[in-house]
This record gives sequence, structure tokens and C-alpha cells, in this order.
Amino acid sequence: MEGFSDGVFAVAITVLVFNLLPIGENAHTGDSLTRALLGGWPQYASYAISFLTIGIMWVNHHTMAAHLRCVDRWMLLLNLLLLLGVVALPFPTALVASALRDGSAGAAEVATVAYGLTMISISVAFASMWLYLIAKQGDLARAPMPMQGYTRLRFTGGLFGYGLGVLAAAFWTAAAGLIIYALLAVYYVFNNLPTPSPAEEAAGYGR
Amino acid sequence: MEGFSDGVFAVAITVLVFNLLPIGENAHTGDSLTRALLGGWPQYASYAISFLTIGIMWVNHHTMAAHLRCVDRWMLLLNLLLLLGVVALPFPTALVASALRDGSAGAAEVATVAYGLTMISISVAFASMWLYLIAKQGDLARAPMPMQGYTRLRFTGGLFGYGLGVLAAAFWTAAAGLIIYALLAVYYVFNNLPTPSPAEEAAGYGR
Amino acid sequence: MEGFSDGVFAVAITVLVFNLLPIGENAHTGDSLTRALLGGWPQYASYAISFLTIGIMWVNHHTMAAHLRCVDRWMLLLNLLLLLGVVALPFPTALVASALRDGSAGAAEVATVAYGLTMISISVAFASMWLYLIAKQGDLARAPMPMQGYTRLRFTGGLFGYGLGVLAAAFWTAAAGLIIYALLAVYYVFNNLPTPSPAEEAAGYGR
Amino acid sequence: MEGFSDGVFAVAITVLVFNLLPIGENAHTGDSLTRALLGGWPQYASYAISFLTIGIMWVNHHTMAAHLRCVDRWMLLLNLLLLLGVVALPFPTALVASALRDGSAGAAEVATVAYGLTMISISVAFASMWLYLIAKQGDLARAPMPMQGYTRLRFTGGLFGYGLGVLAAAFWTAAAGLIIYALLAVYYVFNNLPTPSPAEEAAGYGR
Repeated sequence: MEGFSDGVFAVAITVLVFNLLPIGENAHTGDSLTRALLGGWPQYASYAISFLTIGIMWVNHHTMAAHLRCVDRWMLLLNLLLLLGVVALPFPTALVASALRDGSAGAAEVATVAYGLTMISISVAFASMWLYLIAKQGDLARAPMPMQGYTRLRFTGGLFGYGLGVLAAAFWTAAAGLIIYALLAVYYVFNNLPTPSPAEEAAGYGR
Repeated sequence: MEGFSDGVFAVAITVLVFNLLPIGENAHTGDSLTRALLGGWPQYASYAISFLTIGIMWVNHHTMAAHLRCVDRWMLLLNLLLLLGVVALPFPTALVASALRDGSAGAAEVATVAYGLTMISISVAFASMWLYLIAKQGDLARAPMPMQGYTRLRFTGGLFGYGLGVLAAAFWTAAAGLIIYALLAVYYVFNNLPTPSPAEEAAGYGR
Repeated sequence: MEGFSDGVFAVAITVLVFNLLPIGENAHTGDSLTRALLGGWPQYASYAISFLTIGIMWVNHHTMAAHLRCVDRWMLLLNLLLLLGVVALPFPTALVASALRDGSAGAAEVATVAYGLTMISISVAFASMWLYLIAKQGDLARAPMPMQGYTRLRFTGGLFGYGLGVLAAAFWTAAAGLIIYALLAVYYVFNNLPTPSPAEEAAGYGR
Repeated sequence: MEGFSDGVFAVAITVLVFNLLPIGENAHTGDSLTRALLGGWPQYASYAISFLTIGIMWVNHHTMAAHLRCVDRWMLLLNLLLLLGVVALPFPTALVASALRDGSAGAAEVATVAYGLTMISISVAFASMWLYLIAKQGDLARAPMPMQGYTRLRFTGGLFGYGLGVLAAAFWTAAAGLIIYALLAVYYVFNNLPTPSPAEEAAGYGR
């Protein structure tokens, strides 16, 4: 499961660059190219946020995989559903970027809602995998799962955060939703799933 | 063989997102973007079906690889032919999605037939690999292959299913063919090739 | 070197599908879609030939890597030059396909020459790696290299074959060149670099 | 960290071929195709320079990883920032190529500056990883880090070189900047980060 998932994460994160490629396509003089490059900030910002978001999900995916002794059919299916959302993320990323640059009359709000709904479906798949792993830890995990209450709280927090972003974009303004998504990405960089302790790792528990 | 095939499956499954990227490209207001996103359901449905289909084929590919002790030249060639079909699958997927959205006068039926023919060629390559492995199990397999009769039945069933889908689309309607393909994808999630038993796995048989 | 090269081969082989995606893009009825699909044979043929060619190069790359104990800086550079050509191959593949379908007045011939020149540069990089490995086998190889005369003959044959294809396309017709390329791909499926023998493999020589 | 980073490098290096694909798209006769292929030299040159640059960064990334015993959260974040720049590199590569071919009045200069700024941000991320690894070598490295003074000098040199290229393009001409970038790529092929010595490698230090 690891090798394939790593590959999917790696390709999905790289597909994000296709959002940048059209910038400056029709700018043939130095001045118009400079303007196009400076005007491409929605592309750069959404590229960076989605890149960090996928990168962090990959780190968390690895952390979860370090707890696994084996996988069953349901775990594989949940993993496919998670990857289905991760691979789709460049799509709402492109929607947000192009709505911020060219859109009017609520296009950015709609795109921001679409981005948040994708993130919510990814979060649900991720939480399902983690909760399923906790429920079946006797069969699937290498050792009793640590810090279960904290983990549940953390997933609930992520779902609540993205839900708040969707509501803020739907009923107020896209900027509020996007700021919430960016804060969630930065927050999760520094706050992570529990990993096997060094002692467990030394005992061959981790990978 | 594993690392390269994993990579090819991972990239092929990620290429499917290029089907989604053009949705909403020319929608610049909130209302038109909402309409475009809601009208993109053929893209979402075909993306999900092809994603699950490739994902399941990857799981089955891994299961088969767990039985292998070594590969010979014919096995490598059959594997390349299998990957040739897998990598091509985003193409009929795009055909089906665009025919459902913009097509008329039988375009969806033609696209559905093309999708089914691609799946049949993939199924033939997969079945050939499995039957070849059974025929040469003394040379190639780690242990006598389990449940050979069941496996043959299963491959025959898959071929029959996709053939039925092609006929339904060619002589009746695209919807019937697509429903058959979706049912096959869901069915194969829960019905799989025989894997090495836990006892065999403990004896170092699996990977 | 293996993991990265495997990844590059896997992505390069998958990029070939972008040659197929535009087929039938503007065909909105069943009849026009059928015509577009049947008229896409240059795309299918060039896709299959390039797919097999990259696939075989990957097998050969693995075979060579199985002989390596370590790599030095020159080996890494030659490997990068080899991959530079492999990654570029979808470009002449697209040229040939579109020239066969839409071109006139020698376009197919020019495209076939470009394809052959790319293959020649790949072959030169591959032969250089192999000859360098033979020359430095004391430092780089796990064991004395087998069948060196045969190997040199084989690389010379490949270069001669692609050179013949280029000349045939330049001075006669594209079809002759393309048939030579296809024959070379099929030939190399069944004729390969010497691999470590089962005895060497049992002694932990192979991977 | 290795598997995912390898995958990202592999995909990023392969995305560069999308710069080549449009060459000759509208050339339907032999003569116009020949002209288009010969006129595509900015594409080929920028493809080759970026390919070598990403390839060398991958080699250096592996060298650094060979020193690592484990990673902490900051190391993962710095690695993500490095990959963020690597994945973006096909974008300024495309800018330079299209400005050289179609641009006028300073477009090439602006594109060359954009390329250099991307390389500077990648270099800063790389130097930060290396300096952080040296600073925390007690926690993160397998053994005391070798040749620290030399390494610091080398990173400073790279930053200085790309900075010089940016200034040359901004205040003089694009050609000067591009030649500096090409020289840096070639230079780094033959001058590399310190690797574990054969003795250390034999002791299981390297990978």
C-alpha cells in the first residue's frame, strides 16, 4: 500500500504545477510579462497552499502506515477513497486560482466552497481510516494505538475547520474561507498524528 | 517489476484528474460556475469509476506479484501489455465523459463501447498473466497456486461482464453499459484474487 | 539510482497517453466519433511502439543495474543523459502521429527522422553506460561482466538499426523507417542483455 | 521521506517534456516541420538545462539523505519547501523558452530573472536543510558531518552564482544570465556534496 500511495501523492502534488504553466502565455513583451507574473499571485498562493496541504497529508499517511501490521479489504477501499480526493485536489485549486484572477459576481465564493467540500471529503476518508484502524487494532495494528482521544479530537477539529471555511465562503466572502484553509495547512505542519516513540522504533516497531 | 508497475499505476490513476481540470474554465460568474460544476457530473462519475477500476487492478496486480518468485521474458511482456491498457484508460474515460455532456445521436454509445473494449483488452492481458503463472507455477511461483478453478471462473466472469456492457451499449443504450461497468468495479472491490493465507505469510511466503 | 530512474521511466511511459487524449475531441455525434476513433490509428500505433520501446529500455536498465555494486559521478551523468532522451521520447512520438494523420509533403518523413535521431541518442547513452561499466567493472560491478563481445555486438546492432530507419525515412519513405522501428522494438522484447545466472542470483548477486 | 521525494523529483523532471510537445503542432508540411523543429532550440536548451539541474538536485538530495538517521518536523517542512520549488521549475523553464522564441522588448530578460529567483529560493531551501542538519547532527545524523566548512562555501557559491545570473539578466542581457545558469548546472555535475567514505559505507553507514 505504501509504494503505490507514495507514488499517487507524488504525482498529485506535481500536477499542481499545471496551474502555473499558462501564466504569461500571451505576454510577449517584457512589460506585459512582468504584469502577468505579478498578476499571477492567486495561482502562486493556491499552488503553495495545496502543495503544503498534500505534503502534510502525505506525512500523516506515512505516520498511520507506520502503525499498520497488515491491511484488510476495507482499509484498502478507504485508502482508495482518500487518494480519490487527493488526486482531485488540483481541480478545485485551479478553480480558486482562476476565479480570483478572472472571476466576478461570486465566482471566487463558489470555487472556495468547492475547495472546502473536497477537503472535507478527504478529511472524512482520513478520519474513517484512522477510526477503523483504532476499532480493529487487534487485527491490523502493530501495537495498541496511542492517544486515541487526542486523535479523535484532532480529526473533529479539522472537519470543523474546513466546515467553517465553507460557511464563511458561502455566506460571507471567499477571502475568509481561503485564510481559514491556509491557517489549517500551517497549523497541521506543526501539529501531527502521534508517531511511534523512539523506544518503540528501536524495537523495530516503526519502519 | 513491482516498483515500475506501481509507478505506472500511480501515474495512470493521477492522469484521470486532467478530465476534471477543464470544468468551469469559461465560467466567470458565481452562477455560471455553479451551473458548470453541477453539470460536470459525467466527469465526476467517470473519474470515480475509472479511479476505482485502476485502484482495484493495482490491488490485484500486487496480489499476483506476491505469488511470484521470479519473472521470465514472457511474463514481462504480458505485464507491459497489461500496463499498455491501464495507461490508455484515461482516454476512453475522457471520451465517455465528454460524450455524456456534449454528445448527441449515439456519441455516448460509441464512447461506452470504446471504454468496454479497452477494459476487455486489459482483462485479457490480466487473465493471460494469471493463467501463464498457473501453467508455469513450478518455475515462477513461490508455492503451488491456490484455488485455480475459482480464479479461472473469476476472470471468465470479468470478461463476460465487460462483453455484456459492450453489447448493451452497442445495441441498446450507453447508460446500461455504464451501469454494468460501475457494478463490476464495485463488485471487484469486495471479491478478489486469492491471497497467501496468514500461515503462508508468517512463513515468509508473502511480501 | 534505481528508485528515481524507475519513477522517471514510469512517468515517461504514462505521458504517452496525452497523445491519445485529443482524439475525438470535436466529434459530437456517434458517426463522427466512430470515424475519429478509426482515424486515430497513427496515434494508437505510435503509442504502442513507444510504449513497448520505453518498457524494454526499462527492463534493460534494470538488468544493467543488477550488475552494479556502486555508481560513480560519470555513471550518474550518463544515466541522466539516458533519462533525458527517454523523457523526450513522447515528443517525437507525437510528431509522427500527427504527421501521419494531418501532414502532407514529407511531414511524416521529417517526423520519422526526428524519432530515429532521438532513439539514436538514447542508444548512444545506453551503450556508453554499458561500455563504461565494462571498462570500470573492477570498481563498479559485483562480478566480472559476462558476454562482453555479445553485448557490444548488440548495441552496435541497435545503433545500426535506428540509423537504417533514419536513412530509409530521409531518402525513401516514412513507412519504411517506422516499420524498422517497430521491428526493433519487437526484436528487443525477445533478445536481451545478459542477466545474472540463477546460480549467481542464488548467491545474492542479483537483486 | 526518500520514496516520496524521489517520486516528486521524477515527476517534476518528466513534466519538462510538456515544454517540447507543442513544437511543430501547426506545421503540416515537411518544410514547415523542419523549420519548426530547428526553430525549437530555445525549448531544447531550456529543457536540457532544467533537466540537468533537477537531476543534480536529486543526486544531492540523496547524498544528504544518506547522512540522515531520522527526520524531525522542521526537516520535513524544509523538505516540502525544497520540493515546492523543484516542482515549480518547469514554469520558469517554459517562460524562458517561449520568451526566447516569440518574445520581444525584454521578455527574455524578465523570464530569465524569474528562472533565477526560483533557483535562488530552491538553493535557500537546500542550504537551510543542510545547515539545519549540521546544527542538529547529534539528533539527526548517523555520524559527525564531514567537511562542514567546504559545504557552507559551496552553498554560498551557488547562491552567489544564481544571484549573479539574475543581476546579469536584469541589467544587461538574458543570454548572460542563461549562460551562467548553464555553467552552474555543468559545474555541479562534477562538484558535489561530501558523501560517506567507502569505509563508512562498508560499515553500513550509507544506504
